[in-house]
Amino acid sequence: MIAEIIATGDEIRTGALVDSNSAYIADQLEALGIDVLRHDTVGDNVDLLSAVFWEVGRRADIAVVTGGLGPTIDDLTTEAAARAAGVRLKMDEVALQDIIRFFEKRHRTMTDSNRKQAMLPEPSQRIDNPLGTAPGFSMHIGDCEFFCLPGVPPEMKRMLEDFVLPRCRELLGRKAEASCIQTISTFGLPESTTGEQLDGFNDRFPDIKLWLRAKFPEIQIRLYGRHASEAALLNEMKAASDWVREKIGHRVFSIDGEPMPAVVGRMLGERGETLAVAESCTGGLICDWLTNVAGSSEYFLLGAVTYANESKMSVLGVSKETLDRYGAVHEITAREMADGVRRRAGATYGISTSGIAGPDGGTPDKPVGTVCIGISTPEGSQGRRYLFPFGKRQMNKQIFAMSALDLLRRKLMGYPEKPHMFSQSPPAAADAIKDKQRS
Amino acid sequence: MIAEIIATGDEIRTGALVDSNSAYIADQLEALGIDVLRHDTVGDNVDLLSAVFWEVGRRADIAVVTGGLGPTIDDLTTEAAARAAGVRLKMDEVALQDIIRFFEKRHRTMTDSNRKQAMLPEPSQRIDNPLGTAPGFSMHIGDCEFFCLPGVPPEMKRMLEDFVLPRCRELLGRKAEASCIQTISTFGLPESTTGEQLDGFNDRFPDIKLWLRAKFPEIQIRLYGRHASEAALLNEMKAASDWVREKIGHRVFSIDGEPMPAVVGRMLGERGETLAVAESCTGGLICDWLTNVAGSSEYFLLGAVTYANESKMSVLGVSKETLDRYGAVHEITAREMADGVRRRAGATYGISTSGIAGPDGGTPDKPVGTVCIGISTPEGSQGRRYLFPFGKRQMNKQIFAMSALDLLRRKLMGYPEKPHMFSQSPPAAADAIKDKQRS
Repeated sequence: MIAEIIATGDEIRTGALVDSNSAYIADQLEALGIDVLRHDTVGDNVDLLSAVFWEVGRRADIAVVTGGLGPTIDDLTTEAAARAAGVRLKMDEVALQDIIRFFEKRHRTMTDSNRKQAMLPEPSQRIDNPLGTAPGFSMHIGDCEFFCLPGVPPEMKRMLEDFVLPRCRELLGRKAEASCIQTISTFGLPESTTGEQLDGFNDRFPDIKLWLRAKFPEIQIRLYGRHASEAALLNEMKAASDWVREKIGHRVFSIDGEPMPAVVGRMLGERGETLAVAESCTGGLICDWLTNVAGSSEYFLLGAVTYANESKMSVLGVSKETLDRYGAVHEITAREMADGVRRRAGATYGISTSGIAGPDGGTPDKPVGTVCIGISTPEGSQGRRYLFPFGKRQMNKQIFAMSALDLLRRKLMGYPEKPHMFSQSPPAAADAIKDKQRS
Repeated sequence: MIAEIIATGDEIRTGALVDSNSAYIADQLEALGIDVLRHDTVGDNVDLLSAVFWEVGRRADIAVVTGGLGPTIDDLTTEAAARAAGVRLKMDEVALQDIIRFFEKRHRTMTDSNRKQAMLPEPSQRIDNPLGTAPGFSMHIGDCEFFCLPGVPPEMKRMLEDFVLPRCRELLGRKAEASCIQTISTFGLPESTTGEQLDGFNDRFPDIKLWLRAKFPEIQIRLYGRHASEAALLNEMKAASDWVREKIGHRVFSIDGEPMPAVVGRMLGERGETLAVAESCTGGLICDWLTNVAGSSEYFLLGAVTYANESKMSVLGVSKETLDRYGAVHEITAREMADGVRRRAGATYGISTSGIAGPDGGTPDKPVGTVCIGISTPEGSQGRRYLFPFGKRQMNKQIFAMSALDLLRRKLMGYPEKPHMFSQSPPAAADAIKDKQRS
């Protein structure tokens, strides 16, 4: 079964807005085993829209259209679809009542242009929109079944889920092939090296397609397979996934798309352990990531964003001597920050970052991209230094934050510490300085 | 002049990857005054690719193609373009030398598949790629000039800038129209109400196109105009922008796309004042946003992410009595948090959040979406309560964080406090409770 996807709207045509709807819909259809042939983007132009609908009606079995169902004169999808099919519009009384109720419930005044939204092609089937005023509809243009949905992503997703996907399953009937996607998330190798380590995959697993996807700062390995037999497909996917994990090793941090903060949080939750975080250069990003995970209040006790040295001393108890002697960006300082935040929160673990995110503030000794990461555990504490080759502030914040969480993940998993590709301090150096200073 | 944009690749066709290249290219071409007619997305299929290239060659004056220039057997753009134009491929010696040098410089081994990347249609013009191995090329298919570029965004952008846009300016010659885009950012009204307040815009400014764009949690108003006379266009845009600002009032927080944390940061910097932030439910997001702005260390002194009540007491000095009597989510608690973090950091202002981001933790009194925001200034402190109707954790974190920054912005601008559409506490209520308690 062949599908095409059409995004409409001048915002998308002119590039004022990136169209993420089409990728979402393609992903959902492909997961059902439907071949998505093409996507098309067309602006608010009824002649062109109806021409494209007519073209697609000759090529595809199903088509999903987003956008152009609103109340304004720029919303032309319904008119264009009716024109392409050579049918008229008719007021849909159920849709009209839904719209009237929508406005009543919100004590807002309904306008004539909202009435227009209830005009649907005749014949067509209404697709209810529980989240907004614009109903969708399905109809035939040529031999192709069109599904016209609003462009607002939550409304589109809900109506796809409620109506379009069930209808597609019905159309597929027994012809459905099984398909399967797996996302393996890695951190710590560049995309090119990751690709080189997976050389030979295609010969070994000819039925599985492998893509690398740089979702900075992680590299995702996506496996995609489709097969008449679901059992055969699952076996092949399992073998492929195991092979990839063996090649990439500890740099794989999840095999189901789970993001790093959720991986670390899940491990802490399972152990009944807790975490506190002291951030300088990452500026709250680690805390934000951790608290995006529902239930994080179970294990995340305290975050301290200590930009100023005074705050590092007063909130975290970093010593003035350390700051004077080594500066804010140093393994020793990071270690004291991690110790301090762990102590103040009474947490099992403390992690910390101090570095130069840029664009300013770099020195020859500590250029932009330098970060020191501290980790404090019941068994002791350490500081590490890395230098990343990125000039951009937000990229640096992200890779610094990810490195700190990854260091904690490795500690929790009991992995031996390997030299990191961007390591600047050999694992034992900073600890040795500290011990010397103490003795 | 009519342009079309074609994105190629199975990653995009199947929805594994969102195509942001096409929006970027459309935006750049529209800014030159070129009409982008359609975008097309096609997978790694040489028959379909060449058919689409041939179609577009009949419709458009120029076409920009991204992707499919790599070394693998899935990279088919060059072959498809040659087939659509009915020409052959030929080794481009300059491109080959570039690729050889690229590998030599990185001490990496070049393979035969990399040689393939130097095979270009004959005739065509090579487009140098200073950032990667894949050269691009331009050629005619029908009467349309095609520009084929790699899909890697930085490489595509660089080659667009260096070659495609200058060539487009040349093609446009004296026919070039001036064009102008302005982004007005607002916070505090839903999209529909914002639209209603701008009723009549189209009649008043027929040459300017207005779009609303929900970039949650802000609503952006985008104005787009194109005109033969640049001076006339700038006058019209200025008038349109002033009219919009008068209609929306204090809810406009920037007129050049500047994000809220940068707006607040700029005001603090100009006044030589400083800020400290205490976050509970927003979990570090406010700090992260603030520190994404380069130079924020000048005014941002301290952030405290105090999830646990113990941290609220020990780090911020919130009293045990307040927590026992009112709980963590209350105007009084938020006010004490703001006072506490301001005091600890020695900052001019303190802001705080405490609320229920969800999905769990709501009660009948304090449902998910409730947030209390505190603001502490040299003149005194206040607490406010809001209830937002969003169920999702990350949406709530974002709108809570934005509300806190907006409260500070209004304070800095000296705007009178208006009832917010989601306000739960009348402005004076919490302060009255506090005063009563004190007396």
